[in-house]
Amino acid sequence: MSASTAPNLIAAVSEARQWDRLMELAKLGAITGTDGSPGVNRACLTPLDREARRLVISWAEGLGLAVSVDEIGNLFLRHEGTDPAAAPVLTGSHMDTQPNGGRFDGIWGVIAALEAVQAIREAGVQTVRPIEVVAWTNEEGGRFAPGCMGSMAYAHYKPATAWDAVADHEGVTFRQALDEHRKAEADLSHRPLGGKPFAYLEAHIEQGPRLEAEGKDIGVVTGIQGSRWFIVEVRGETAHAGTSPVSTRRDAVQDMVRAINALNALMTDPTDVLRFTVGQIEVMPNTSNTVADVARFTIDFRHPDKELLIANGDAIEPTIRSAVKSCDVTVTERFHALPVEFDPLVTDAVQAAADAQGLASLALPSGAFHDAQFMVPLCPTGMIFVPCRKGVSHNPAEYSTPGQLAAGARVLAAALVDLANR
Amino acid sequence: MSASTAPNLIAAVSEARQWDRLMELAKLGAITGTDGSPGVNRACLTPLDREARRLVISWAEGLGLAVSVDEIGNLFLRHEGTDPAAAPVLTGSHMDTQPNGGRFDGIWGVIAALEAVQAIREAGVQTVRPIEVVAWTNEEGGRFAPGCMGSMAYAHYKPATAWDAVADHEGVTFRQALDEHRKAEADLSHRPLGGKPFAYLEAHIEQGPRLEAEGKDIGVVTGIQGSRWFIVEVRGETAHAGTSPVSTRRDAVQDMVRAINALNALMTDPTDVLRFTVGQIEVMPNTSNTVADVARFTIDFRHPDKELLIANGDAIEPTIRSAVKSCDVTVTERFHALPVEFDPLVTDAVQAAADAQGLASLALPSGAFHDAQFMVPLCPTGMIFVPCRKGVSHNPAEYSTPGQLAAGARVLAAALVDLANR
Repeated sequence: MSASTAPNLIAAVSEARQWDRLMELAKLGAITGTDGSPGVNRACLTPLDREARRLVISWAEGLGLAVSVDEIGNLFLRHEGTDPAAAPVLTGSHMDTQPNGGRFDGIWGVIAALEAVQAIREAGVQTVRPIEVVAWTNEEGGRFAPGCMGSMAYAHYKPATAWDAVADHEGVTFRQALDEHRKAEADLSHRPLGGKPFAYLEAHIEQGPRLEAEGKDIGVVTGIQGSRWFIVEVRGETAHAGTSPVSTRRDAVQDMVRAINALNALMTDPTDVLRFTVGQIEVMPNTSNTVADVARFTIDFRHPDKELLIANGDAIEPTIRSAVKSCDVTVTERFHALPVEFDPLVTDAVQAAADAQGLASLALPSGAFHDAQFMVPLCPTGMIFVPCRKGVSHNPAEYSTPGQLAAGARVLAAALVDLANR
Repeated sequence: MSASTAPNLIAAVSEARQWDRLMELAKLGAITGTDGSPGVNRACLTPLDREARRLVISWAEGLGLAVSVDEIGNLFLRHEGTDPAAAPVLTGSHMDTQPNGGRFDGIWGVIAALEAVQAIREAGVQTVRPIEVVAWTNEEGGRFAPGCMGSMAYAHYKPATAWDAVADHEGVTFRQALDEHRKAEADLSHRPLGGKPFAYLEAHIEQGPRLEAEGKDIGVVTGIQGSRWFIVEVRGETAHAGTSPVSTRRDAVQDMVRAINALNALMTDPTDVLRFTVGQIEVMPNTSNTVADVARFTIDFRHPDKELLIANGDAIEPTIRSAVKSCDVTVTERFHALPVEFDPLVTDAVQAAADAQGLASLALPSGAFHDAQFMVPLCPTGMIFVPCRKGVSHNPAEYSTPGQLAAGARVLAAALVDLANR
């Protein structure tokens, strides 16, 4: 009988404990959605974020895990293996949320990993390799764009100083926020940035409708679609709304609308696979009776097909330039990630664990972006999805049942033991 | 020889003094435009606004004028007539600016009125009626919308408490800002709100290109085009930018773009007389990788023709409702002012003064909105325009020469004496 089907391990995963921890964390930054749903707004590197981290650390210390942080604030909770020198299995996700976020996106992957490790220890299951639970810094990119800074720095995809000058809405830079954060966590053990894990496995709610619609318990994630993010700045000239003739204006808002119209045409996809979003707009001086001289907007473009991602992404700037009438335009690509495929070493372990536990599973790609994206070049990587109601996420209405989350944690525990004994 | 052509009065208007005062005031809130021009950002009811008012008050007190304020913060500087009981001639404008404003819009009307009164006193010209210089509170509406609150309250068009709940970008309400302002000016003499002037005459830069283009010194303003202002709120649902299919989204930004496209079609005007502006946009949660659930935008619509103003303004809400695809919409009209015509009593006085001084004048309507709009139902009203470079306003590049402004102040002085002796 393999470790992954050990009944004492599966029984040791506590649905109630995992749920209670999630609900306790959901109090930190609690908000109420427009439909009355209880959501969370907990941006990275804030006092709220640190409060949540301290809570998780207290649980980890109660279990006897070794706590450490690296220079970009990634938090690690280490369960020792029988061979402490062996490359560890890494598992986790992120603790920050969208401004209008839910109670499960990210944080469940951290709490599920903690639950799995707790079950492994309480069940007396031995693993050769250490298992490290990680909470990555700034996955969401809601306060400081782009997201996934913590995993990007860990994977040496970018240096940890790459985003020093990125500022939030209040003008605080990422560097300032990170320095303050590290000062507040100076009592925690420090570890060098990066590492060479044996494997990485991340648990996450699906954030899409497929598992629920198809009645599945577990998503065996095959890969992540590619993403390209842009910031567009349209620069015209302020003018008096009452006197300046419309024909002579250099109106940044109107040229932004022209650009979005042209992009909508470029991004039309009858198959509904392509994702194109303008989610953020800033206008200056932003007063009702002055023609705007500046309009900035973001583009979030994703597709699972590499060729289409490259072709349509490269067409964004010329499309905008053709569309605007009288303003100057700057188009900056601030993030470019090609589609990735996960490793059979990990996806097979997840599939085997789901099968052994009699859970209905579905192999599917991830529509959302995840820290796992950046682990792919570093080590065999995979993800576990659980269903979420109507596929809603980045919204307080985001919801998965305690039972769905417990099933995910059980599969995670078994797959981790499997991987950690290879 | 009438008072309006008294050579000692005209000679007593000082081009240098008026210019120096404007330049001194332009230091309070000085900003630099994108082209390097020196502009001003001085919002109403701020410490900067109060500093500017104290400077003007110090000049008025130096002249011996009686200073008072009313409950909405309108500031009055009174030159006494030989009959103190006679209805006064009221003249002035506003001291607040747009966030990216110039050095002349509004403030010149106050300083020109002060210069005219100073010239009248220094020339020893007697007037039967008192002349009151007024600086209206919040004409621009840049911090608290709509503008012209001070003149609307004075004219009893709305009660002074009508805008108590209006909040600025930082969430400070107009009531909070006004209470703080009045506390800071508690040492000033208080006067009841409102009054019944004999006439109102406001001097202002044209904020349009006509006087300069036609080589005229003075605009004899015939009236003000009508304005209708709206706030539109589009409400959809947040969703994950990577996972939610575009076809199922309730994307507030995309429905806002659809609404603006439809409004652009409605507001198309080959004669280029109609003014349609979307100057302010707020998006929530305003993060690049979340589909927005709220988009708010403003509409500033103006036209000199009453029938067209009513017809197109009334079509705004149904046009938006037909255009949006999946979001809910609220359209709120927050300001509605029909076109007004000025009174020959005042326009003739301006015309006579310009003619007597050998200045080239042009009768023209105002494209911009002014406090004078609200004086029309109260008393005979008029305005004097002077040219401004390329018609640029609401921008640091706004400029009129010292000589153009002095010519305007001379016409104002003569017309005020004319009206104050009727």
